[in-house]
Amino acid sequence: MTSANRPLLGIDWGTSNRRAYLLDAQGGIAAEHADHAGILQVNGDFEASLQQLLQAMKLEQGADIVMSGMVGSRNGWVQVPYLPVTQPLSALAQAMTPVPTALPGVRCRIVPGYTYIDPQGVPDVMRGEEAQIFGAMRMGAPDGWYLLPGTHSKWAELRGGRLLRFLTFMTGELYALLCEHGTLSKVINSREPVPLAFEAGLKASAHGEFTHAAFGCRALVVTDMMPPEHAASYLSGLLIGSEIHDILRRAGSMDAPVQIVGSPSLAARYGRALDILGMTSRAWDPDQVYLAALHAFFKESDQS
Amino acid sequence: MTSANRPLLGIDWGTSNRRAYLLDAQGGIAAEHADHAGILQVNGDFEASLQQLLQAMKLEQGADIVMSGMVGSRNGWVQVPYLPVTQPLSALAQAMTPVPTALPGVRCRIVPGYTYIDPQGVPDVMRGEEAQIFGAMRMGAPDGWYLLPGTHSKWAELRGGRLLRFLTFMTGELYALLCEHGTLSKVINSREPVPLAFEAGLKASAHGEFTHAAFGCRALVVTDMMPPEHAASYLSGLLIGSEIHDILRRAGSMDAPVQIVGSPSLAARYGRALDILGMTSRAWDPDQVYLAALHAFFKESDQS
Repeated sequence: MTSANRPLLGIDWGTSNRRAYLLDAQGGIAAEHADHAGILQVNGDFEASLQQLLQAMKLEQGADIVMSGMVGSRNGWVQVPYLPVTQPLSALAQAMTPVPTALPGVRCRIVPGYTYIDPQGVPDVMRGEEAQIFGAMRMGAPDGWYLLPGTHSKWAELRGGRLLRFLTFMTGELYALLCEHGTLSKVINSREPVPLAFEAGLKASAHGEFTHAAFGCRALVVTDMMPPEHAASYLSGLLIGSEIHDILRRAGSMDAPVQIVGSPSLAARYGRALDILGMTSRAWDPDQVYLAALHAFFKESDQS
Repeated sequence: MTSANRPLLGIDWGTSNRRAYLLDAQGGIAAEHADHAGILQVNGDFEASLQQLLQAMKLEQGADIVMSGMVGSRNGWVQVPYLPVTQPLSALAQAMTPVPTALPGVRCRIVPGYTYIDPQGVPDVMRGEEAQIFGAMRMGAPDGWYLLPGTHSKWAELRGGRLLRFLTFMTGELYALLCEHGTLSKVINSREPVPLAFEAGLKASAHGEFTHAAFGCRALVVTDMMPPEHAASYLSGLLIGSEIHDILRRAGSMDAPVQIVGSPSLAARYGRALDILGMTSRAWDPDQVYLAALHAFFKESDQS
């Protein structure tokens, strides 16, 4: 059986969730499936979990499958070595790692992630975002800085088909941790967005000092200078602002629009922050760019 | 009954714990008591909780009591307004707020905390640390920067008996949160101090960017560049280093020794970090400085 007559399936398999896309002949979506069978939820039995996914999508006859994300990590199905950033994004298709499986009619491969060592010798890593950036590039997105917001927000500089460098910020994770545990959670009584408070946090982030500035969120409330309803948005502004100011310091300047690949709500939130700080951005639909990447992975890899 | 013949009792009453010191005539400790009846544990019945403390210390006949810390906060017994930093530390004794109580023979007062508004208009607050700094000053500690490490690490600049400014860092809280929850906790398998890893984290903190640098702790482990046993110490170095670098940026320079008031283990850890970054420090015993403060509070306040 060749992939020419097998259904083509792409799976973005992350830590907590996975999302699968069945491609049609034009590279559009024939069917889609999402569930919470992230790699930490499957108890190590990835094959059984994939089988359930194929059943749910009525693909028991088999499929040619490309997976990306944490499924290729140490705690994933098969640990796929990171590519160094000296390897262009066009190398991803050929670098996919086959996954041994006894599922009938199934061919299964995992896209590698990237690693980058910064000038101070500290590494950074990505798994999954490389496919998004590659897809955006295939859709015509230009060179420059890419932002993939989320639990771990990624900023990557793309030049001539290569990632020159990338940085991860723990923005989403710190926001969730601080809203749920500890001192700030005690003054946060709502997570409804408050634009003015978001802007105030953004402004307060300009001086760096996040581990100090975060306490300011509490101090503003206990001194009655800010209502508790504003605290979560202030913290969000502080975290997103810290991220943008840090990237600006690294980048020197950022004249071209930032290419944002993220959910509409996160893309809008970051877009607004960039706008306030005098920068421009363009948002890309994460499903569309992922589909473009999948299409290229299937087309440009070994079809045997 | 005047305080001249009543026992003098000082209580450092915090969020999670409290510590009580019965003074002898020379300002030393006649008896000491510590328990976990922090303000969040007493269910709002502070009088009953104080009564239990007095019974435990065999002070049922009454006492002249001075309390400091979160007991004077919004969630404490009586909310005592913060003093602005324009008020000298010598004003604390006269600014103590009486607490109404029906306990026999008991006079009870709470020391106010301080608030400081930074040049950007963001407030900071302290409750409890003001007594420690005042006590150190009474013991002859010089003008300059004071460091009170802990869950919320405080740096305060003392000049001529006044706090010029102070800053809180969420160092201890972020360390605990990140060791217990989320991404970094998954790579942290030991909290045993590893001096080399602490130094590496300290070095990595020099560029600011804490919300990015913290992810480096994970990336170092998943790329096999650092064993997981080093991750907690690396994170500690990163947090303490961020704090020191931020203070150095604010202070301009710090030629005089930093006066550290904290537990021996924390004081040693910060002392080492300051040493590595080319600064000197002197450690003060937190019990001793608190006693010196209590002695002055009783002596200099209204004795009626």
